[in-house]
Amino acid sequence: MKPVIVLGSGLAGYTLVRELRKLNRDIPVTLVSRDSGDYYSKPMLSNAFAQNKDATSLVLTPASEMAKQLGITLLAHTDVRAIHRHEKRLDTCSGALEYDRLILALGADPIRIPLQGDATGAVLSVNDLTDYAQLRDALGTAKSIAIMGGGLIGCEFANDLAVAGYAVTVIDPGPYPLASLMPEQAGKQLLEPLTKLGVTWRFGTAVQRIDKATSGYALTLAGGTVVHADLVLSAIGLRPRIQLARDAGINVNRGIVVNERLCTDDDSIFALGDCAEIEGRVLPFVLPVMHAGRALASILNAEETRVNFPAMPVVVKTPVHPVAVLPVARDAAGAWQVMASGQGVKMGFFDEQNKMTGFVLTGEYVGERSQMTKMLR
Amino acid sequence: MKPVIVLGSGLAGYTLVRELRKLNRDIPVTLVSRDSGDYYSKPMLSNAFAQNKDATSLVLTPASEMAKQLGITLLAHTDVRAIHRHEKRLDTCSGALEYDRLILALGADPIRIPLQGDATGAVLSVNDLTDYAQLRDALGTAKSIAIMGGGLIGCEFANDLAVAGYAVTVIDPGPYPLASLMPEQAGKQLLEPLTKLGVTWRFGTAVQRIDKATSGYALTLAGGTVVHADLVLSAIGLRPRIQLARDAGINVNRGIVVNERLCTDDDSIFALGDCAEIEGRVLPFVLPVMHAGRALASILNAEETRVNFPAMPVVVKTPVHPVAVLPVARDAAGAWQVMASGQGVKMGFFDEQNKMTGFVLTGEYVGERSQMTKMLR
Repeated sequence: MKPVIVLGSGLAGYTLVRELRKLNRDIPVTLVSRDSGDYYSKPMLSNAFAQNKDATSLVLTPASEMAKQLGITLLAHTDVRAIHRHEKRLDTCSGALEYDRLILALGADPIRIPLQGDATGAVLSVNDLTDYAQLRDALGTAKSIAIMGGGLIGCEFANDLAVAGYAVTVIDPGPYPLASLMPEQAGKQLLEPLTKLGVTWRFGTAVQRIDKATSGYALTLAGGTVVHADLVLSAIGLRPRIQLARDAGINVNRGIVVNERLCTDDDSIFALGDCAEIEGRVLPFVLPVMHAGRALASILNAEETRVNFPAMPVVVKTPVHPVAVLPVARDAAGAWQVMASGQGVKMGFFDEQNKMTGFVLTGEYVGERSQMTKMLR
Repeated sequence: MKPVIVLGSGLAGYTLVRELRKLNRDIPVTLVSRDSGDYYSKPMLSNAFAQNKDATSLVLTPASEMAKQLGITLLAHTDVRAIHRHEKRLDTCSGALEYDRLILALGADPIRIPLQGDATGAVLSVNDLTDYAQLRDALGTAKSIAIMGGGLIGCEFANDLAVAGYAVTVIDPGPYPLASLMPEQAGKQLLEPLTKLGVTWRFGTAVQRIDKATSGYALTLAGGTVVHADLVLSAIGLRPRIQLARDAGINVNRGIVVNERLCTDDDSIFALGDCAEIEGRVLPFVLPVMHAGRALASILNAEETRVNFPAMPVVVKTPVHPVAVLPVARDAAGAWQVMASGQGVKMGFFDEQNKMTGFVLTGEYVGERSQMTKMLR
């Protein structure tokens, strides 16, 4: 039986697998990840500096333990190159994989804006545990940090890094923090508390150039102001990862387009999490991912539901001489054999491979129903 | 929302509804029954005489109580005349009913063989609680009973009625009891114990005529032998009820043909229990019905599964001034209003009907998330 293949080991991929396993331990599942497959809490990434946590200590459960707990095959550090929909097959850097159903939990990439200058390559962004480790390395002896973007992630990092002792400057083209999420009076509530922590705000402008300075970097803003920082972090937003799906001819828009059953325009391919556009909405937040994971688990499990009758002996309620029988088809090849007789009879039907495929128990033997049923296996 | 309509209040119909309710209390369900809808254990019907139980005492749960417990609409004593598949509508003796999905749990009819004689109308069979009540009435002062059929039901009734004190004759064209279910050596085990109870066996023959006698009836067997009995019970077998489905153009064979997902060739119509032919098999036994009921409940529930996001506030983890926001669409009509302000702010977004559709909580107000979420309803 071909597996359900999940691409992605983030919150979306792991939530789906965990919820599916609550419903069904039998569906074979392969999880393919570009990363290590270690399970960590992504929201912690922008709240870990103040607690001085390194990347390793943010791992909640290592990949191998996840695979064992969930009863799945985990392929870590595995890039998927293409989806061949008609053959229901993936090409990966380590060979081909056939799927029964494919789940895209690919996540999103940080948005990068085009910049001028000789140090544009130095801009970091933190979107996974590897990025976080890289940021901690890069910080070294840095004292000042410029954050491009004053939205949710930018503000969280500003708070976290300021508490950790860094001098933080937040640069955002909008008029106040969190402007895309809330009205001015609410967003402005953040100004004073964060300023007191040591955050400097630059609203209504954007970084245009980044150049190496004698120490750190010089950021030239629109209007000409220059801001110095030892490190530059970009937190402008996320762009759903749609390329793999688009290349396979799956319908994409801002995200991978799915319906309210999380199904793409290919019946065998589903998407959830930051890469998905669900009924027109991209919802890169924790609660929608958890919610969608539960729903998709139920959908996948039910597609599995088949009436697959186990051996079901029939009981004849003749108390004077009780009978239980697992009948065989009239034309079944094989023969009945007496296995015991006394106050009743125990008989088995054995096929040409001498496998028992039916039985009758009468009288004193009628209690052996479950033993006989087990012998069928 | 149109309901799932279940036709039939036997073990199949009620098992399905009970299992569905374990998974989902919200799907509207209407159960339509020709009978009272009282829930009883059908296997008890052939084991109740020895315990001297009347029909009323076999009712485990009255219909009204079942409807209440299961949260369903129950239409008792309601005949379904036709299924209009294209309109997804039923014609019943008390009006039209529209369905979202239709479950056929219609059961089976006792097989009647053509007989000669002036008393063929006196032959009884027991297939439901009403039949059972009728049999008990008909017994009156009867002392002797002829049972046509020495299969499962025939043997069970023979045992039950013999224990209850009646002189029982079993007439069957086969060579020994339960011949369609098991080999001779097993089936013959029943002969002696039942004979000791007072059962007389007539194998290798069948009833050809039934005529009124001075007292009771005279049954003329093939070969000319005449058997006298005060009452005649037919237990020859069951024939799946397929006429309603056939008239609607649904694929039928011996039973209503369904696949391993219990679906007929109409995507919205399912069948289970004695009326169904599942992958070529008709399985009129208790265990398969229970098993199919569970599977179909899961299938119906999952078809219901949609991602239907509740209000999901986004938390901004800026501990120095925490924020929770339920954002509104950029182009939403309405206005933000300050509901409270102090060490932070509480704001709601009110649409043109003055309904709150979004909110922001900052600082001291951030704990009011669940109260605000409730206000959205």
